[in-house]
Amino acid sequence: MLEKLKQEVYQANMELPKRNLVTYTWGNVSGIDRESGLFVIKPSGVSYEDLKPEDLVVVDLDGNVVEGDLNPSSDTETHRLLYKAFPEIGGVVHTHSPYAVAWAQAGRDIPAYGTTHADYFHGPIPCARDLTQEEIDSGYEASTGEVIIEAFEERNINPVHVPAVICHSHGPFTWGKDAAQAVYHAVVLEEVAKMAILTEQVNPRAAQAPVRIQEKHFLRKHGPNAYYGQKGAN
Amino acid sequence: MLEKLKQEVYQANMELPKRNLVTYTWGNVSGIDRESGLFVIKPSGVSYEDLKPEDLVVVDLDGNVVEGDLNPSSDTETHRLLYKAFPEIGGVVHTHSPYAVAWAQAGRDIPAYGTTHADYFHGPIPCARDLTQEEIDSGYEASTGEVIIEAFEERNINPVHVPAVICHSHGPFTWGKDAAQAVYHAVVLEEVAKMAILTEQVNPRAAQAPVRIQEKHFLRKHGPNAYYGQKGAN
Amino acid sequence: MLEKLKQEVYQANMELPKRNLVTYTWGNVSGIDRESGLFVIKPSGVSYEDLKPEDLVVVDLDGNVVEGDLNPSSDTETHRLLYKAFPEIGGVVHTHSPYAVAWAQAGRDIPAYGTTHADYFHGPIPCARDLTQEEIDSGYEASTGEVIIEAFEERNINPVHVPAVICHSHGPFTWGKDAAQAVYHAVVLEEVAKMAILTEQVNPRAAQAPVRIQEKHFLRKHGPNAYYGQKGAN
Amino acid sequence: MLEKLKQEVYQANMELPKRNLVTYTWGNVSGIDRESGLFVIKPSGVSYEDLKPEDLVVVDLDGNVVEGDLNPSSDTETHRLLYKAFPEIGGVVHTHSPYAVAWAQAGRDIPAYGTTHADYFHGPIPCARDLTQEEIDSGYEASTGEVIIEAFEERNINPVHVPAVICHSHGPFTWGKDAAQAVYHAVVLEEVAKMAILTEQVNPRAAQAPVRIQEKHFLRKHGPNAYYGQKGAN
Repeated sequence: MLEKLKQEVYQANMELPKRNLVTYTWGNVSGIDRESGLFVIKPSGVSYEDLKPEDLVVVDLDGNVVEGDLNPSSDTETHRLLYKAFPEIGGVVHTHSPYAVAWAQAGRDIPAYGTTHADYFHGPIPCARDLTQEEIDSGYEASTGEVIIEAFEERNINPVHVPAVICHSHGPFTWGKDAAQAVYHAVVLEEVAKMAILTEQVNPRAAQAPVRIQEKHFLRKHGPNAYYGQKGAN
Repeated sequence: MLEKLKQEVYQANMELPKRNLVTYTWGNVSGIDRESGLFVIKPSGVSYEDLKPEDLVVVDLDGNVVEGDLNPSSDTETHRLLYKAFPEIGGVVHTHSPYAVAWAQAGRDIPAYGTTHADYFHGPIPCARDLTQEEIDSGYEASTGEVIIEAFEERNINPVHVPAVICHSHGPFTWGKDAAQAVYHAVVLEEVAKMAILTEQVNPRAAQAPVRIQEKHFLRKHGPNAYYGQKGAN
Repeated sequence: MLEKLKQEVYQANMELPKRNLVTYTWGNVSGIDRESGLFVIKPSGVSYEDLKPEDLVVVDLDGNVVEGDLNPSSDTETHRLLYKAFPEIGGVVHTHSPYAVAWAQAGRDIPAYGTTHADYFHGPIPCARDLTQEEIDSGYEASTGEVIIEAFEERNINPVHVPAVICHSHGPFTWGKDAAQAVYHAVVLEEVAKMAILTEQVNPRAAQAPVRIQEKHFLRKHGPNAYYGQKGAN
Repeated sequence: MLEKLKQEVYQANMELPKRNLVTYTWGNVSGIDRESGLFVIKPSGVSYEDLKPEDLVVVDLDGNVVEGDLNPSSDTETHRLLYKAFPEIGGVVHTHSPYAVAWAQAGRDIPAYGTTHADYFHGPIPCARDLTQEEIDSGYEASTGEVIIEAFEERNINPVHVPAVICHSHGPFTWGKDAAQAVYHAVVLEEVAKMAILTEQVNPRAAQAPVRIQEKHFLRKHGPNAYYGQKGAN
């Protein structure tokens, strides 16, 4: 069942330790098959050294486990709500990568200080608010998803143009057209978060890159007139 | 004698350099067999490259070397007092990992800034006070243990819920149900200490995570209603 | 065609990931054959794992692709203008290495704080200004080259003596007598940028190294009376 | 000639890149045979990848090259003066390791913030002053040695008890009973320099460790009553 997707999601999960984004089991990747409405996700608490493709759990968009002997990631509900709210996305990643976590714990959006950021994220990366007691009690992981969606709706951000969020007191989620691209964005987010901290160390009053430069770089890589890379490549 | 424990403590010691927690010989791990009241500890000043399971030293809870040709770690007395005061623990680790040392040298508790912290530590990680001249003279390493115990008693902290301390001007000790978990907590402590420094760089007035979120994450992983991970796994 | 140069430029490109200067495809190296006026450059968006010498693109100094099936780097125009304006240079590198990017995003020159800097860069490393909307619209990458050249002309800096620049809101370009030396300077720039940030953390009022010491170190390695290294070596 | 010493000095040099203390050729190690008054030192500008034991240069305490086809390190005169002034030492190291350089460029002594420092260095690590124009002109590298010696004499520091210095605007020199121990101290210095920066980030008003604790740790490892490590081990 969904063997190709499982392979993709497995490879994407294994990319996290390879890219130094996770300590122990602190991260999970999922990928969705939009046709069947089923997504494949890492099991909870399984170490990357032990993870095998057949350990992955298949879940439907109502949250039912459809296949798999192990418990799915404890963050499954967050993934599920993001898939439902953001129909363009095909993969979701959660990590505790330290620089992105620092911005989340500090409760600040990550400013768009330069072209490295603007090449992938169209504007600042939003910091979603803390959950209330009621939101925690009614289902912590689902509420985490709802608060992320709220942040994008309230600020009118297109999740395809800003494929990342940091959750206050918690850490980052990223997404993409598939699991591999979601991991790619997790790597970029961590690098951009690191550069932004260093930028403020060099100049505590640093300003974001001028909008004209942000626009240029984002559109150089994305949209109908993009000219970065090779034709036919993504 | 205690061959299985020796193997466990040996593996736990070797995990320190693998996880980049030690420079040269700056660290030691022990594990205890509660039935016999004997603990196994790294010998003093032996490099990890040269360390063999049979080099480990067996010590009783009165501090007598029961087996082993080498001197036990110079920090043996600290381990011993922690085993006596905290009957639930089965392993102890000491390192000079740099981020945890920074908080120790700065003389500050590590605030609970987010869920990475709260997943393992129920509240801030306490900084135990400096020793007096008298405490140094009467037995430096034993007094170090006493001052750690004092910090937990005075603040009424359950050492199972906060399995780490930083000693002022010195560095961290961690513990766990066995030697492997004590090392796991040493790795987590270093990561959490790093994230906390970065958090204050992003926002010097950052607040700790709301208690409701700390509680949620700690209880998601610990206690009777924990649901993180797989049933039967630890 | 230019097979030896292609090999050199290929090797120089592969040095970027080996020296941890690039994430994914964030960097490019070129080298020029001054006799024919042709330069060889990395294709756009090709990962270093997949890059082969025959993928490199040959471009002339008017910007025409002379050989190669792939699109040249999107930064080709910047390389081209630097080769035209700085006739002594034989190689150019662009990266998003994080410490150099931090200074670029902060909009500050990198001060010459010590001998590590002065061994390679004769004075501060200039931060070239942001582009205007008109400069972006008229050709972003060519304008980037023009603004770099403007920075060196306005401040009367010899590009052979300061083989690096950081572009505001963007990142570094470096150059050298050939592609290999341009990469060498990219590595040194990143190290010097890191040291300068750390220096200001230790002492926010740190002063640049006295000019007499900068001169001594630069001239110990460069010019007719240099005595560092072996005779006949570069 | 001095084949055993050459092997030791070669191994000590190769430890520098292994311990991540050098970029390219930025470092050198020497070791002395006190009986013959000859020391063996790395040749100038030779990369560590290419270095062979037979490349090492033998120099006498008057600065004459006694054996070797290559130029000795450009810092040879500094090594020579340290050997003459500090008769107890058997090895000298110079690096541009970034955290130690940061303190040098900032022009500050490295405070003794904790036991990691006190285990190896008896008090702060001094920052030797900048050279005057006259000192540079009369022989830069010899004057560097003289200014280091001046710092230890003026402050009455025993170079065996503080086997490291940082030279203002430049970087660190360390030494030890032999080349291997000098490298060991270079590694410790870098780690201690890093911890000290992090300590000030956590608490800008951090105080040095109480003298009683510094004394305890230094004497636990050094002197007649030392009890760290194994009898007969160094």
